[in-house]
Amino acid sequence: MSSTLTFSDIPSLRQKLGPLTGDIAPVTTPMMFKSPRCFHKPPAKSFKHRLSQEALSRGAATLKTAGTELNADIISLATGRPSPEYFPFLKMTLDFPQTSGASKDRADSPLSGTIGKYDIKTNKASYDLAISLNYGYSAGSEQLIRFFTEHVDVVHNPPYSDWQCSLTAGTTSALDSVFRTFCNRGNYIITETYTYSAALEAAGPFGIRSIGVEMDEEGMVPAHLDNLLSSWDVSRRGAAKPFLLYIIPTGQNPTGTTQSLQRRKDIYAVAEKHDLYIIEDEPYYFLQFQTGKSEAYANSDQSPRSESNLVEEFLGNLIPSYLSLDVSGRVLRLDSTSKILAPGLRCSWMTGSADIISRFLYLHDATIVSPSGLSQIALHTLLDGVWGHEGLMKWLLYLRDEYIQRRNITLESCEKYLPRNICSWSLPEAGMFHWIKVDWRAHSLAAAYSKSDLEFENMILKIEDRIYSTALRKGVLCCKGSAFRAGGVKSCEMYFRLTYATASLPQIQEAIARFGMATREQFEGRV
Amino acid sequence: MSSTLTFSDIPSLRQKLGPLTGDIAPVTTPMMFKSPRCFHKPPAKSFKHRLSQEALSRGAATLKTAGTELNADIISLATGRPSPEYFPFLKMTLDFPQTSGASKDRADSPLSGTIGKYDIKTNKASYDLAISLNYGYSAGSEQLIRFFTEHVDVVHNPPYSDWQCSLTAGTTSALDSVFRTFCNRGNYIITETYTYSAALEAAGPFGIRSIGVEMDEEGMVPAHLDNLLSSWDVSRRGAAKPFLLYIIPTGQNPTGTTQSLQRRKDIYAVAEKHDLYIIEDEPYYFLQFQTGKSEAYANSDQSPRSESNLVEEFLGNLIPSYLSLDVSGRVLRLDSTSKILAPGLRCSWMTGSADIISRFLYLHDATIVSPSGLSQIALHTLLDGVWGHEGLMKWLLYLRDEYIQRRNITLESCEKYLPRNICSWSLPEAGMFHWIKVDWRAHSLAAAYSKSDLEFENMILKIEDRIYSTALRKGVLCCKGSAFRAGGVKSCEMYFRLTYATASLPQIQEAIARFGMATREQFEGRV
Repeated sequence: MSSTLTFSDIPSLRQKLGPLTGDIAPVTTPMMFKSPRCFHKPPAKSFKHRLSQEALSRGAATLKTAGTELNADIISLATGRPSPEYFPFLKMTLDFPQTSGASKDRADSPLSGTIGKYDIKTNKASYDLAISLNYGYSAGSEQLIRFFTEHVDVVHNPPYSDWQCSLTAGTTSALDSVFRTFCNRGNYIITETYTYSAALEAAGPFGIRSIGVEMDEEGMVPAHLDNLLSSWDVSRRGAAKPFLLYIIPTGQNPTGTTQSLQRRKDIYAVAEKHDLYIIEDEPYYFLQFQTGKSEAYANSDQSPRSESNLVEEFLGNLIPSYLSLDVSGRVLRLDSTSKILAPGLRCSWMTGSADIISRFLYLHDATIVSPSGLSQIALHTLLDGVWGHEGLMKWLLYLRDEYIQRRNITLESCEKYLPRNICSWSLPEAGMFHWIKVDWRAHSLAAAYSKSDLEFENMILKIEDRIYSTALRKGVLCCKGSAFRAGGVKSCEMYFRLTYATASLPQIQEAIARFGMATREQFEGRV
Repeated sequence: MSSTLTFSDIPSLRQKLGPLTGDIAPVTTPMMFKSPRCFHKPPAKSFKHRLSQEALSRGAATLKTAGTELNADIISLATGRPSPEYFPFLKMTLDFPQTSGASKDRADSPLSGTIGKYDIKTNKASYDLAISLNYGYSAGSEQLIRFFTEHVDVVHNPPYSDWQCSLTAGTTSALDSVFRTFCNRGNYIITETYTYSAALEAAGPFGIRSIGVEMDEEGMVPAHLDNLLSSWDVSRRGAAKPFLLYIIPTGQNPTGTTQSLQRRKDIYAVAEKHDLYIIEDEPYYFLQFQTGKSEAYANSDQSPRSESNLVEEFLGNLIPSYLSLDVSGRVLRLDSTSKILAPGLRCSWMTGSADIISRFLYLHDATIVSPSGLSQIALHTLLDGVWGHEGLMKWLLYLRDEYIQRRNITLESCEKYLPRNICSWSLPEAGMFHWIKVDWRAHSLAAAYSKSDLEFENMILKIEDRIYSTALRKGVLCCKGSAFRAGGVKSCEMYFRLTYATASLPQIQEAIARFGMATREQFEGRV
């Protein structure tokens, strides 16, 4: 087999690798679905020295281990697993849209998938309700693991041999598992200056502190990261040198920045130098607009809707992931279904070295057990049964084009309604967030600025709160930038995060007009 | 309204309390669905002094709090919540069995429920895919919370005012949350001598140790519990006096014991005396056989299948829960859908005082976010839409009768195939487990018994392992009793746990015959 793999190779690959077991919760599957090219690569390094006290003391659950001794001749009176005849679900039928945007919501000709209770037994399908509604393997059902393993193989082609996928019960849950797996109380983690607030809030109660690294238009700056680590003073900081790097490389939340390939390589080099472990959180990875920098957005008629409909072009233009650069196995990539399919599924996937993934499986055996079986079988029916790998890519193309439209309306509205001498922004090249810098220096409260640091910070927070409240009074809810600020960061700037994900296009225009009125009111006479 | 509440009161109660909001993730709902009688009771005591360091440092998530300021006139550019038009799920249709056993698996006339994407907007239903597939409130959707709140109100009628239900992502996940909410590293928790092994394994890596309290035929013995606590010596134990009591009152796992009402009252009194907080884990609560003690099982023709079909009789004969005795609000009850509907749903419910539940909601915001929306809407469609409260009870009656049959076959087979001078057991009055004591004293290895304690324990484990392996070789997998043993317990007895939940009736007979052969082989010449 050649060293390139495309989605069109998957059918013959499946044939070679053989059929699924069809068993309840088979535990030996994730490595089985990888293409032969994976096994010619060197193995991942060990990161056991990075594991938390909790992770080091976890092993396989007793009752699960017992199950592995089963074979067809053995009757199990061991696990208290109800017989599927007692599951009150006989059949599920799902209607999905075509992958092309034209039909989407009010689909004239929906695609349909039907799942019976005993479709495996009756050879109708490779997955059924009797399996998906039972206790599952914490990595996920073999049916869905196969799909995501193939997906990762084609899209990321990790450069070491023993990578592995596992499902998660959503990325928020996975992040909680990350902190439990890598951190002890008192540890620092490294993040961008501004980062996903829920990640910080999840880490805090564990006694984990964040330390932010400065960003530019391409996100985290490698030199600052290197400098932070090279100059880390254990006694001054009162904590060991941090090693867990949490980053959102694409369409970063909240700043909307996207790291170029070179930026990723530079940060990975710093990670190699300081032996960091990288959490690559990528919910917006497939919302890369690929419209080029700065000039392309304004003319939405020339947006790439019509021409970019080729899956290969889309795939070829995606900025490579950290996972795809990861020669050492020091990256755990978190993919999410929430922004590209639906958040309510609470079923996403992650990829890392087999040893690290196994730590998560031990943990998940004792926590989530597995993502919902209904979510799993619905995803499988959609992705594997109805759309297929290429169908998913076409859906992502459709979504990408929708978000380009939303971004463009947002930018047009900002140009039209916001006072340009107070508000400034960059072009979001991916994702769903627009990050607006507001120059507080012209605000009347700034006149009262005193030299003490604390009052300076407080003053900015006070101005931020006034703008936020005025905007709310005028009928638009946005997020304060300060809510996303990591620890150890002194900010002398003020930001607001606007998302164009939810509101309709006319609502986006109206909301930004209101935000403009709010800033004008707050900066009266100075805009 | 009178102080009794039955399922037939629910429709008029709903009418009085008004309609659901139909909003995405409304956060103010759980208290809204309780009958007026609840509010005439005294409030729960505070158990804040029992919270862990982690729980005390958690609060509401920033982005969630932001959402509460919304009203209809405000456009939100705040939360990165995708528009439902981008959820690729248009319609879901589910087929369910009738609640009576006759049709169950091969249903001739299944009941059907169909859910559209915008059923709320179009006034077709009170719940739809646009809501259930979005980010949800961590307590669960208002639609499902209403159902379980009504259920708890009717079935348990907790004797304090501010009780509240929340969904969980399954009881294993809820138990993990329990340890995080109440325990710090180094704490002891109190359990029965033999208890659910996964609970112990989940607690261990947190640095939480278990200490087992002796049991008799009715489970945990209150006098032993009182004695353990009254004589607790902090310096000898190297840990504070424990206060978290984890119990499985009905069809206990692994022993199959069920606590009588008096037993529950006595344990609750000890809990009041020592200010314990009780985790009532009740996955088998509705599998109470109600066939009376000891004599009734053998004649399965006279089993109560035909006559017990009255929901009131079933409800009236259920042994009251700890929740229903809980005047102080010191009980967190964990109900499970896994044994009565399907484990793959990963969506169950718990009930406790509002303050304690709020601690779980803060935690769940940062971990599970919410149970799967597909599981929630499937459950809602089945329980609220198709079956209704009484329908669920009829289903439970059907299940109960099925498990009575399974238990009876198990007991008959044990009497037929096991050597009675070596093996002994009690009658399981609930649940899915049969606990068999095997008298190791007649085993050849026992002849080599030396007086040292360690060797004594090792000898029993060695005999247990031989029986286990012989049984496996003969084609039956069972669980070793030692796998379920709590900490601090010296056992001079040996047990095996058999479940009659999974195998078919003929398989159960065959498997027990094999287990009988294995014990006979191990005790050759002595049976």
